[in-house]
Amino acid sequence: MTDLKTRTGTELEWTELDQKAVDTTRALAADAVQKAGNGHPGTAISLAPLAYLLFQKVMRRDPSDSTWLGRDRFILSNGHSSLTQYLQFFLGGYGLEIEDLEQLRQYGSKTPGHPEYGHTDGIEITTGPLGSGLAASVGFAYASRFERGLFDPDAAAGDSPFDHYIYCVAGDGDIEEGVTNEASSLAGTQQLGNLIVFYDDNQISIEDDTNIALSEDVAKRYEALGWHVQTVDWKSGADYHEDVPALYAAILEAQRVTDKPSFIVLKTIIGWPSPTLRNTGKIHGSAMGEAEIKGLKEALELDPEKTFFVEPEVLAHTRRAVGRGQAQHAEWNQGFDAWAEANPERKALLDRVLAGDLPEDAFADVPEFPAGKAVSTRVASGKVINGLAKRFPEFWGGSADLAESNNTTIEGVGSFLPPERATAMWKANPYGRVLHFGIREHAMGNILNGIVLHGNTRVFGATFLIFSDYMRPAVRLAALMKAPTIYVWTHDSVALGGDGPTHQPVETLWALRLIPQLDIIRPADANETAAAWKQIMSRRMGPAGLALSRQNLPVFERGEGEASGDVFASTDGVAKGAYVLAAAKKDVPDVILIATGSEVQVAVAAREALASEGIDASVVSAPCLEWFDEQSAEYKESVLPAAVKARVSVEAGATLGWAKYIGDQGRAVGIDHFGASADGDFLLQEFGITHEHVVAAAKESLGR
Amino acid sequence: MTDLKTRTGTELEWTELDQKAVDTTRALAADAVQKAGNGHPGTAISLAPLAYLLFQKVMRRDPSDSTWLGRDRFILSNGHSSLTQYLQFFLGGYGLEIEDLEQLRQYGSKTPGHPEYGHTDGIEITTGPLGSGLAASVGFAYASRFERGLFDPDAAAGDSPFDHYIYCVAGDGDIEEGVTNEASSLAGTQQLGNLIVFYDDNQISIEDDTNIALSEDVAKRYEALGWHVQTVDWKSGADYHEDVPALYAAILEAQRVTDKPSFIVLKTIIGWPSPTLRNTGKIHGSAMGEAEIKGLKEALELDPEKTFFVEPEVLAHTRRAVGRGQAQHAEWNQGFDAWAEANPERKALLDRVLAGDLPEDAFADVPEFPAGKAVSTRVASGKVINGLAKRFPEFWGGSADLAESNNTTIEGVGSFLPPERATAMWKANPYGRVLHFGIREHAMGNILNGIVLHGNTRVFGATFLIFSDYMRPAVRLAALMKAPTIYVWTHDSVALGGDGPTHQPVETLWALRLIPQLDIIRPADANETAAAWKQIMSRRMGPAGLALSRQNLPVFERGEGEASGDVFASTDGVAKGAYVLAAAKKDVPDVILIATGSEVQVAVAAREALASEGIDASVVSAPCLEWFDEQSAEYKESVLPAAVKARVSVEAGATLGWAKYIGDQGRAVGIDHFGASADGDFLLQEFGITHEHVVAAAKESLGR
Repeated sequence: MTDLKTRTGTELEWTELDQKAVDTTRALAADAVQKAGNGHPGTAISLAPLAYLLFQKVMRRDPSDSTWLGRDRFILSNGHSSLTQYLQFFLGGYGLEIEDLEQLRQYGSKTPGHPEYGHTDGIEITTGPLGSGLAASVGFAYASRFERGLFDPDAAAGDSPFDHYIYCVAGDGDIEEGVTNEASSLAGTQQLGNLIVFYDDNQISIEDDTNIALSEDVAKRYEALGWHVQTVDWKSGADYHEDVPALYAAILEAQRVTDKPSFIVLKTIIGWPSPTLRNTGKIHGSAMGEAEIKGLKEALELDPEKTFFVEPEVLAHTRRAVGRGQAQHAEWNQGFDAWAEANPERKALLDRVLAGDLPEDAFADVPEFPAGKAVSTRVASGKVINGLAKRFPEFWGGSADLAESNNTTIEGVGSFLPPERATAMWKANPYGRVLHFGIREHAMGNILNGIVLHGNTRVFGATFLIFSDYMRPAVRLAALMKAPTIYVWTHDSVALGGDGPTHQPVETLWALRLIPQLDIIRPADANETAAAWKQIMSRRMGPAGLALSRQNLPVFERGEGEASGDVFASTDGVAKGAYVLAAAKKDVPDVILIATGSEVQVAVAAREALASEGIDASVVSAPCLEWFDEQSAEYKESVLPAAVKARVSVEAGATLGWAKYIGDQGRAVGIDHFGASADGDFLLQEFGITHEHVVAAAKESLGR
Repeated sequence: MTDLKTRTGTELEWTELDQKAVDTTRALAADAVQKAGNGHPGTAISLAPLAYLLFQKVMRRDPSDSTWLGRDRFILSNGHSSLTQYLQFFLGGYGLEIEDLEQLRQYGSKTPGHPEYGHTDGIEITTGPLGSGLAASVGFAYASRFERGLFDPDAAAGDSPFDHYIYCVAGDGDIEEGVTNEASSLAGTQQLGNLIVFYDDNQISIEDDTNIALSEDVAKRYEALGWHVQTVDWKSGADYHEDVPALYAAILEAQRVTDKPSFIVLKTIIGWPSPTLRNTGKIHGSAMGEAEIKGLKEALELDPEKTFFVEPEVLAHTRRAVGRGQAQHAEWNQGFDAWAEANPERKALLDRVLAGDLPEDAFADVPEFPAGKAVSTRVASGKVINGLAKRFPEFWGGSADLAESNNTTIEGVGSFLPPERATAMWKANPYGRVLHFGIREHAMGNILNGIVLHGNTRVFGATFLIFSDYMRPAVRLAALMKAPTIYVWTHDSVALGGDGPTHQPVETLWALRLIPQLDIIRPADANETAAAWKQIMSRRMGPAGLALSRQNLPVFERGEGEASGDVFASTDGVAKGAYVLAAAKKDVPDVILIATGSEVQVAVAAREALASEGIDASVVSAPCLEWFDEQSAEYKESVLPAAVKARVSVEAGATLGWAKYIGDQGRAVGIDHFGASADGDFLLQEFGITHEHVVAAAKESLGR
């Protein structure tokens, strides 16, 4: 193996062909946006030297294999400048051709407006929402250290096939968004030496000169956050000078610093050398116009009459990246094969993790909870997490400073922290499995995305359900990418009590259920919680969020199979999203009570009260409506028979979405207003989340 | 008038009674949480000296009048420590008594778990979601400068009745949340000299020692953000020493710095002098237990047998704050009266703004848009904004770096910026009316809250609709407080085109409509946009968000009144939230097509197509479902007759919530999946937002 710190050669070779290749990408960027009619040419033009340097001279990547484990990762946080990446994918032979550039921002093309994970081969993560990429790059760096610990913990630093760099390019928007300050603070705490971030400091955003909104000293801020900071100023001389060797030297220096993440401020002129639009907000996000493009090409000494043109010898030169990458890959394979031979068990683990398979007896240590005793689902979840952790070494996670409240601590495995971050309460281990995000929910969300995308480990993050709002943009990105992150959201209703309306979710469950490709699971008792976790660990189709109670809930006495008579169903139905927990006496119930989470017990009590009045009700526990929606029509009919129009939903939150399940004749028992600071049980009474109210609603629905 | 810079006396008087009062509040904090059974005693105990110093010695406030315009504002960003504020309200005679402290966190009490605006007299803003208070305090400081410019622009610095300080207390959570970095960067850019923030640097959060997640140099970071930073270290000596004079001196120094916001790092031991729980995460958020409270009281030399006890002479001493405040108020009144006499027009403006009244001919300059020409609702909104701005001098706002896309620039009034922040594109004026938030949506949301709460001016903030997710926690707080902030959210569907799924809202409209007390308005054409703005300016019942199109939409030809025959209704119905835009031929339509925003034209086209097949449809334009829900049953019946079960909703987004309006027999035309990068018109076709599809859905709903 080549040592990670010295892997990039110390001499930069930068020929006329290299420069011509860089200049060619500038022209192609202008052409592509012009043809599309809209897009973002400016940064793609001015960052062309950086992008080329990284993809052709610095990063270890194999254009012919985007799945190579040993590759350096590249994250374009300023995702609107997707051309920056596409153009290097074109030059470097990653599978994009001129035709793809011509199809920029067209339906189904490989070159959408923002880089899309799972859509264009080689894209590591979907970016565009500003700040998300830089924040996720911290997660990539977390993952690279964790995976090294999992698979090759004893190798010398920089010596393992699991060692590589995470490179991230960010713009003003990324720097201004608060989520990057959150994530960058964690990166400093974690001493992520393999993370190198470039800040394209061009002092231009959409509203032109950033002096109106960004006057801070960004470099000093990153120093304060514990980063190694360098500035490469291409504007320092009388004329703008794209000093590539200086940038290269800074990258080498950043590679040598192994105990801090590195931040390289690159001062550029956006759109340079575009004749009139450079250094203006206009070139950020609009087509430049024919005249300006002509001027650009002339300034670059390219033929202004040609569009989408690359000289064959330029392309031949840059496509040599494929051979270089394959050679690097082959060299890496030797080290990897040696590791695999010496570590057959770890190799088997790696194969399983990459395949997304379950371990043997995956759920053997997940507890069953005895009926009768009251347990909150958050406490049950904590026990399940610890049961899973014994069988899934790739399972890790933590909380945004609410570990004890969220019940998310894996015991006995140490915190993922450098040694000097140990405290009286927490043991520190660079390869530990307990994550401490601080009070930074949004960064947590993006870091989870980065972790999952990097190496397919299973990771969870936790906070109060209400604060899912803080992390919502990152949750949406996970859903868009179908990244199987896991969220542990506790304190899931007004029943949390005295903290009051700022902390009490009301609209939150439905607001989350609205996000496509996101599963929201709200288990009714401890054993549903265990079943939910098992299903989450078995599925890998996208993100999943658990909504868990603060308050204790009875653990239902259950039978072995389906509900029958007075015997409640087993938890097998949890995986189907909704199931008949308590059957009606008749084949067809008079009324269906459908409830989730802590309100299932309310529905159960209502069923008994209705029975005493001769009304035959079934109780449907519906922990995950997304899973239920996937079921066959037959199964759905068995749970919610179409003939039964009398239905009541019970959920201590907004009622809006329930109409889909209860129909016109149904009644929704819920809370469509903000909560209040008071005892939780009191509030449930006050707000009508009671079996009496459910009984009344059932009668209303029955027209009685 | 006393000059603002020298208003606080230079000599601190700190007697034994003062110290006893401070110590009494510590015991009361412990007692209150113990009685409630849960809550947050730790910070209330250790910050007692700071809170007492501010409320008794520093701030200019009149406990008998919480509405006094000239008061210094106090914002407790670490809202969980609400006792910090309640205890000073008790000591200082603000209306809280021992009984209120005994009712901590009880339903309806004046002492809820977190400070609630509009609930407890004297609370300036609801806090609790971390970071929100500090970010909003920047908005308070924005407002104080803007209002000074509106009412008394020519007074010497510190000399106006509109000059005062904004004091904010923040904890580790506030510092870790990214939103405060966003807002603090803006505060530095804006040189907010009257903003003084205290950072309670106790190195303890819920997961105990913050070394696991907060290792950055916070003081240096705030220097980098352009703040004046001081550190007062009570832990620097061999023993912990609460050096109140040093803290006082730092406050005086902060007051003297008028060109930068001030940040005072106060290093404390949480819970000091609690014998065993101090300096631990345990004392942050739990009742301490009887033994610990006894130890605390003994350490304070208070009687451990007494609970909720304050010595009469202590209370008599601290209640003198009422008289002092009234005297300050009376002195201020002289200056204010002199100003009022010299500035009768400005005084009338002030009275109107405080009353929340409209100006005369408020809407005289709001344009009417001629039918026929296609105009996007974002462009129409921009023209309306400029029309309103002529009549409402208290109307200001801007964008999170998308001014041109959001069409939010008030022309000719200058940007709200210190002179040295002027750029080629933007004129700077400290009292300007155009706001530049940078790419910081979350801070924008909180700053808007602070602005509205400070002095009742009308302010708007803008971004793309999808990025309402970034500001969602702040929007929720506005709704909870019923603060009439205004959001201009443009690019409101997949029709925005090539930017792709990261930028295309799908679930967003319903996710926002789920928030209680928030109005979401999606106008169908330019004239509905004008009507919507008028209604927003007339209502002040809570926040309102406009969802506006990127793409051009036809301006409907309308009649003068209700829809009749082929004559479309006037825009009068906009204020009712939904109205019959195009009537059916018969009294009772065969089918109702209900649509919002850009999809109303689709419904109109479908109505024509249906007519050609002999199906009689009405088109209901529903710009604001919240306003519609408020209407009388009669009005609702006139728009959506119960007898008509055949209904189709049309909205280019998630369909979830439409069931409420279209019922079991209805059909929802919408988009329940993520978007794609492509031309907007193409996507609408591809995703079935077409009149053909609406026609088919109408027939399905009719059972044909």
